[in-house]
Amino acid sequence: MTSTNDLQRVAVIGGGVIGGGWVARCLLNGITVNLYDPDPNAARKIDAIMVNARMAFAKLVDGLVPPEGKLRFADSIASAVDGADLIIEAVPERLDIKQSVYHDIEAAAADTLIASSTSGILPSDLQAHMAQPDRLLVAHPFNPVYLLPLVELVGGAKTSHSAIDKASQMFRQLGMHPLHVRTEIPAFIADRFLEAVWREALWLVNDGVATTAEIDDAIRYGFGLRWAQMGLFETYRVAGGEAGMAHFIAQFGPCLQWPWTKLTDVPDLTDELVNRIADQSDAQSAAYSIRQLEQIRDDNLVAILRQLEQRNWGAGQTVRSWQEQLNASAIRSMPDPTPLIRSYETTVPQDWVDYNGHMTEHRYLECFSHATDEIMRQAGVDDAYIAAGGSFFTVETHICHIDEVMAGAPIYVDTQILAVAGKKMRLFHRLYDTSGTLLATGEHMLLHVDMTQRRASQPKALVAAKLAKMAAGHATLAMPDAAGRAVGMTR
Amino acid sequence: MTSTNDLQRVAVIGGGVIGGGWVARCLLNGITVNLYDPDPNAARKIDAIMVNARMAFAKLVDGLVPPEGKLRFADSIASAVDGADLIIEAVPERLDIKQSVYHDIEAAAADTLIASSTSGILPSDLQAHMAQPDRLLVAHPFNPVYLLPLVELVGGAKTSHSAIDKASQMFRQLGMHPLHVRTEIPAFIADRFLEAVWREALWLVNDGVATTAEIDDAIRYGFGLRWAQMGLFETYRVAGGEAGMAHFIAQFGPCLQWPWTKLTDVPDLTDELVNRIADQSDAQSAAYSIRQLEQIRDDNLVAILRQLEQRNWGAGQTVRSWQEQLNASAIRSMPDPTPLIRSYETTVPQDWVDYNGHMTEHRYLECFSHATDEIMRQAGVDDAYIAAGGSFFTVETHICHIDEVMAGAPIYVDTQILAVAGKKMRLFHRLYDTSGTLLATGEHMLLHVDMTQRRASQPKALVAAKLAKMAAGHATLAMPDAAGRAVGMTR
Repeated sequence: MTSTNDLQRVAVIGGGVIGGGWVARCLLNGITVNLYDPDPNAARKIDAIMVNARMAFAKLVDGLVPPEGKLRFADSIASAVDGADLIIEAVPERLDIKQSVYHDIEAAAADTLIASSTSGILPSDLQAHMAQPDRLLVAHPFNPVYLLPLVELVGGAKTSHSAIDKASQMFRQLGMHPLHVRTEIPAFIADRFLEAVWREALWLVNDGVATTAEIDDAIRYGFGLRWAQMGLFETYRVAGGEAGMAHFIAQFGPCLQWPWTKLTDVPDLTDELVNRIADQSDAQSAAYSIRQLEQIRDDNLVAILRQLEQRNWGAGQTVRSWQEQLNASAIRSMPDPTPLIRSYETTVPQDWVDYNGHMTEHRYLECFSHATDEIMRQAGVDDAYIAAGGSFFTVETHICHIDEVMAGAPIYVDTQILAVAGKKMRLFHRLYDTSGTLLATGEHMLLHVDMTQRRASQPKALVAAKLAKMAAGHATLAMPDAAGRAVGMTR
Repeated sequence: MTSTNDLQRVAVIGGGVIGGGWVARCLLNGITVNLYDPDPNAARKIDAIMVNARMAFAKLVDGLVPPEGKLRFADSIASAVDGADLIIEAVPERLDIKQSVYHDIEAAAADTLIASSTSGILPSDLQAHMAQPDRLLVAHPFNPVYLLPLVELVGGAKTSHSAIDKASQMFRQLGMHPLHVRTEIPAFIADRFLEAVWREALWLVNDGVATTAEIDDAIRYGFGLRWAQMGLFETYRVAGGEAGMAHFIAQFGPCLQWPWTKLTDVPDLTDELVNRIADQSDAQSAAYSIRQLEQIRDDNLVAILRQLEQRNWGAGQTVRSWQEQLNASAIRSMPDPTPLIRSYETTVPQDWVDYNGHMTEHRYLECFSHATDEIMRQAGVDDAYIAAGGSFFTVETHICHIDEVMAGAPIYVDTQILAVAGKKMRLFHRLYDTSGTLLATGEHMLLHVDMTQRRASQPKALVAAKLAKMAAGHATLAMPDAAGRAVGMTR
């Protein structure tokens, strides 16, 4: 769970494809963004990205989302980083440019975490000339940044552990899956694979073995589908079957000695090769504009992510947690509801009446029990939530019987939420007849439970957020006289 | 479109993960399989694969499917290949074993296409000692073979063009995407990438940079999602934006010279490294059994493929065509319906009657028009089909008016399908009253049209199959006397 205070304002330095993707992801999470990009077309570039990002986000996420964050175009790095909780650098991949940006940042903002989007430069090199190098780390995202959950976090020699921890928490709040690359190596993890594949693909095109379209088909009709949901090792573990991973490696290991890949060299990027790739790419994809391809890609990714989310697997798990956070954040951003909650209404049935001619004692508690159910329902503890194993159990009850009521009388309960904290919830019900006569009060302590474990547990983020919102509204109400009272004789 | 005669019996030599996957894909397509596998556990292995494959297939495909093909366990290669339209070899990856299998095949079956499942051996080497080497090609599938559409087709020096063409058609019938690898190179296309990534992954584990779980996450939370729907080049084309592919390469090309990947060597597969990988894989995945992981993988793949199918993109296009073929195949395998089709019923409305006191002339054609609509509907030309742009237009009509009918009389039309061929359909309607009096006959020639192009076109596979089935049933009925008659006076 995230608190409300983690990440409220992010500075982004550089508004290209990656910087703009960061801007989009932050804004959609309801976070204010200060963007510094000297390009006079910066606003137009961001607008174009936001069109795609908003569409994709709306299709990806269900339920309540926080209001979109505000975007401010800063006219200097100093102005951009002012008041930011996190500074994301996404300028071109040149060490000197990046170091110059850090210099400007350090002149304007102390302590704030600085995350570089570099896909290849070592953080130790990035931080070499910094006054506070401990706050610099690499946070390497993947395009489209507003959709793909992976972010590789890499510290340099001088990066602090707390910077990595803090960054992990922040990127989780942004709906991402932070992968801590524990050893600082060039290209980190994912891009080493991308680079190996890219190199091999260049050879295949260079040697005329395959066109760009054939290479793409070899990926997306086959192993690309596998890798959307399991990686390399888990895929091979499954393929290896019951015999296990060691057997699989022993069986396929020798292939590595075969002349399968062009290991030793890189093709020269001659004009001829560059043009051949560009021409093949046109033949393959020019039926669609880049804008159309972006939207096709986004829709495909959304469709895949939603399926994985329903199956709670891989990147879908990240989307699921993100959605819960967004829903909770949306609840928190709503105005506080102040009136008491009308939580139960009935007419006293004939069979609730006892030999004294009035509603019998335990029916008062039944009314309060229904009222508690309604509060839970409004907080999101509905059938689906309970079926998934979460609920509230009443652990303590204090009733004051004040007046009697006869069969056929319309009665109702108003509920005041006295307190909500972690697993605990304290409710105060008042039972009235329709003339406004107070018939009884009930004070109840409830505990959230994980019913699969049969023990107390934290409610899910959305429920916690809704309860907190309801409780905040009632915090301005006077504490009832009867609240906190123990059973006893007035002395 | 496939004809009914393409692929009816397949011989599979070798029933491991890949051979068993072929068996499953063939059986689910309604194709008879002769399997030769000397392993005494062969039946048990196939059973296990079929459990998974049937579940996945049922979730992947909607609508009618042909009855599952029959599986016969052959006790020799000679017996397995007898009567087969295609021979698939899936024995261990050793040239001598494979060549010995081809020797046995050639002793028993002439001419039949032989497809090797090898993932790395060159077809020229495979066919080196064959008497009929022109019929040998590589057909390299991807696990799980019953779900992933890609099959790489690679010919050797002596493979005939017609063998490649014929194999393409056969694997399309099996619901696959044949990718013709035009240049014979070791590991073909896809496995060159897999090998490059595998080698890089072994280094990362060997050097302690990342665990198997971290590597898998670096794939499936990021670029793996991209590659399920676009390949390498199209992804980069989009990322490069408006500036185009040449600009993208120029920008990122220099990275290839950086020391990003361990180019020159392969880590030794020492016991220590093998055990480290096995241990890490256990830590990552041992919470699930292999059987559970297979089903998780299959369900994920099905979910992704179904989404891509709905979006008619990439591998989803293959699934869509496959489904149409399966539906059509299911129709073809049903018994022929012989009775005439009751295509219209009504009671003659008052306002259909003219000044002569009987049903007026053009209402006869209205009855036949409704009858034609019903025939189209039964053939699958429903609202959705028409909305998608396909329909039949009547191009010729011949009516014989035989008797009159009065207002309020119940009447009906029986329809005989005289002929269906390609774009054309010839119908013969008979209009009766309920006493059985023949009131009129209508003979109609219809043409299937693509309404977006406003021109004649072939009907979709399912419609063609349904019509062919209906026509086949009516082929045994006598040709009506009035059929083929032109308007004229008897001489």
